[in-house]
Amino acid sequence: MDTPLDSACTFSERAQQLTSSAIREILKVTERPDITSFAGGLPAPDGFPAEVVRQAFDRVLTEQPRVALQYGPTEGYAPLRAWVAEDLSRNGARVTPDEILIVSGSQQALDLLGKVLIDKDSKVLVETPSYLGALQSFSLYQPQYASVATDDGGLVPEAITPALAEGARFLYALPNFQNPTGRTLDTTRRQDLVTQAARLGLPVVEDDPYGELRYAGEHAPSLLSLAPAASANVIRLGSFSKVLAPGLRLGYIAANRTIINKLVQAKQATDLHTSTLTQMAVYEIIKDGFLAQHLPMVRELYRKQCGYMLDAITEHFPADVAYTRPEGGMFIWVTLPAHIDSSVLLAQAIAEKVAFVPGAPFYASAPVHNTLRLSFVTVPEAKIRAGIATLGRLIANYGR
Amino acid sequence: MDTPLDSACTFSERAQQLTSSAIREILKVTERPDITSFAGGLPAPDGFPAEVVRQAFDRVLTEQPRVALQYGPTEGYAPLRAWVAEDLSRNGARVTPDEILIVSGSQQALDLLGKVLIDKDSKVLVETPSYLGALQSFSLYQPQYASVATDDGGLVPEAITPALAEGARFLYALPNFQNPTGRTLDTTRRQDLVTQAARLGLPVVEDDPYGELRYAGEHAPSLLSLAPAASANVIRLGSFSKVLAPGLRLGYIAANRTIINKLVQAKQATDLHTSTLTQMAVYEIIKDGFLAQHLPMVRELYRKQCGYMLDAITEHFPADVAYTRPEGGMFIWVTLPAHIDSSVLLAQAIAEKVAFVPGAPFYASAPVHNTLRLSFVTVPEAKIRAGIATLGRLIANYGR
Repeated sequence: MDTPLDSACTFSERAQQLTSSAIREILKVTERPDITSFAGGLPAPDGFPAEVVRQAFDRVLTEQPRVALQYGPTEGYAPLRAWVAEDLSRNGARVTPDEILIVSGSQQALDLLGKVLIDKDSKVLVETPSYLGALQSFSLYQPQYASVATDDGGLVPEAITPALAEGARFLYALPNFQNPTGRTLDTTRRQDLVTQAARLGLPVVEDDPYGELRYAGEHAPSLLSLAPAASANVIRLGSFSKVLAPGLRLGYIAANRTIINKLVQAKQATDLHTSTLTQMAVYEIIKDGFLAQHLPMVRELYRKQCGYMLDAITEHFPADVAYTRPEGGMFIWVTLPAHIDSSVLLAQAIAEKVAFVPGAPFYASAPVHNTLRLSFVTVPEAKIRAGIATLGRLIANYGR
Repeated sequence: MDTPLDSACTFSERAQQLTSSAIREILKVTERPDITSFAGGLPAPDGFPAEVVRQAFDRVLTEQPRVALQYGPTEGYAPLRAWVAEDLSRNGARVTPDEILIVSGSQQALDLLGKVLIDKDSKVLVETPSYLGALQSFSLYQPQYASVATDDGGLVPEAITPALAEGARFLYALPNFQNPTGRTLDTTRRQDLVTQAARLGLPVVEDDPYGELRYAGEHAPSLLSLAPAASANVIRLGSFSKVLAPGLRLGYIAANRTIINKLVQAKQATDLHTSTLTQMAVYEIIKDGFLAQHLPMVRELYRKQCGYMLDAITEHFPADVAYTRPEGGMFIWVTLPAHIDSSVLLAQAIAEKVAFVPGAPFYASAPVHNTLRLSFVTVPEAKIRAGIATLGRLIANYGR
């Protein structure tokens, strides 16, 4: 051909910023079966209630196939919206079904929020560090990030000064077992955060995919339940990925009606609605209290896995390595001595068939290069011990 | 509360353009069971292979639950991508599995294309009129539309002048039984269109949700199969909504690898991936040739329904009303005498418990007010005849 047709497309400015990161390329090798990967964010398949899911799909497709297979409302399947509203209300928030939008997983919630709340160069506040998937999602709408300081107790409410909050579209926060750090905000900080945000007129996006996976410490109330005017300035994101199964792609947004209405319009243009069949099947599964029976098993599974890794770290990591002790969720955050670059360490680790995620990509600004994230969920105990021993040795020998 | 928390959010510029249209408000009443609605775009539930779907979900959840319920690759389930590539290749295109992206219904394909191809004020070419859902989807990315002239044979290739194509990001076209007009491009026009687009360096988005629902006339090749360098300048969108069931939310994009790679990055930030379980179940359904057995029944159903409506129109509409005779799909497009405003007619029709969609919203520019769209798919024969008789009377009496 004369014309270079393959390059005939002009990509949008936002698409040009989408690039496959070096990290992502490296992590592709972690999918090889001979690699012990602490890099993944996958929940444990042993926690999937496969038979219960099978029965639910079977029941829905036997009893209501014409509804389940047809287009449905953008807002979501009404009984499922009502269930979510009731569940949140039982946990102290005041939420009605019309304040719930069902989405195709929490990641879609992030995209929809970006669509309706972010203009090019809008200020968005994020934790230091924050969830990489959220940064990727928001970045499509080209915001300017401002990082809010954190310490071992998570986000520091006093760090949200009027100057920092000025003009910000929202603060994005993960109060429970944060991804990537595993840190949790205590109740006092939650209260301070919500009060401060309300005073400053700052909407708070509370992303809580792991909240039900607490296996240590004490329950802390959701930001939504603490908000002074119900869902007025807190937008809560929830997910069925970690309590049932991620392959279903199901989550929800709880927010005041003004925001939900905008999000519904955006979702209609984005994918019309989330699978009717999936929504009906999940409602079948959970409507009679299944999660209360099921979750203790999942929590125990995660608690044990976390314990294996913490034990191994205690045994094998040099004394000058700091790490978090999560009360739930899937991740441990490691801070290495300052002279160690975790992306260099990753290359060394992969050579010995161990993988993790370097910390730098989780920072919206001023990346810290001596940090890394470990996931303990899907790796068998013996491999956790061996893999952590390898990392400990590489850390101790780094630069020698 | 002192602070007006409910309005604390600042919506993005694009979100402010999202409004619930007057039409949409009117159409809400069409969901009432006492209304004969020709307004819907719903496929016929009689065409859903419910038992086959049930068995497929059952099999996948029995045999491979740990894969089906886990996160999966953004690109889609590999065997399903391979099936789509093979199916397109059998129909004359040269497509490899890595040129396929699985999406959560065609509507998501439109959103992803908007994301990676449209900047604010980018020129986008659309047919006159065009699919409303596509206009809504693209509009979130704030393009400037330029309408391409059409006639009874659909889009007029010669109307795509160099001046019109200059700087356009793409042309969006529905060559088969277009929504809303029901018009189909013949093979000559397809060849001319593809040749002209290639010459002008204009990417063409071929949206073909109804292609398999042809019940009259002769098969015409896809634009993708006619493109001079395979998928180089044609991006094809396909859907399982009309051949299986829309509630599953499953579709695909076929395009060259440069474009697919960008779309994959955008999809990862948008919803990570489409339900693994749904993809695996649909693959189970179709892998051994089910569609070839199933589709004749669906086509026959649609052919009959279309025939009922065309018969009724012939009998009841005044002679100065023009309408299309679709060779497939779901819609008939009606052009009324110039003095009739179809939105006024709609109000009159609703008073007599009949509904349709006025044509004006389908025009990206210069709306034509004496047009309307009728769907014949889900209404029983007797109600089609009675409803069309009512419309015929209202048209004849309009303004008297």
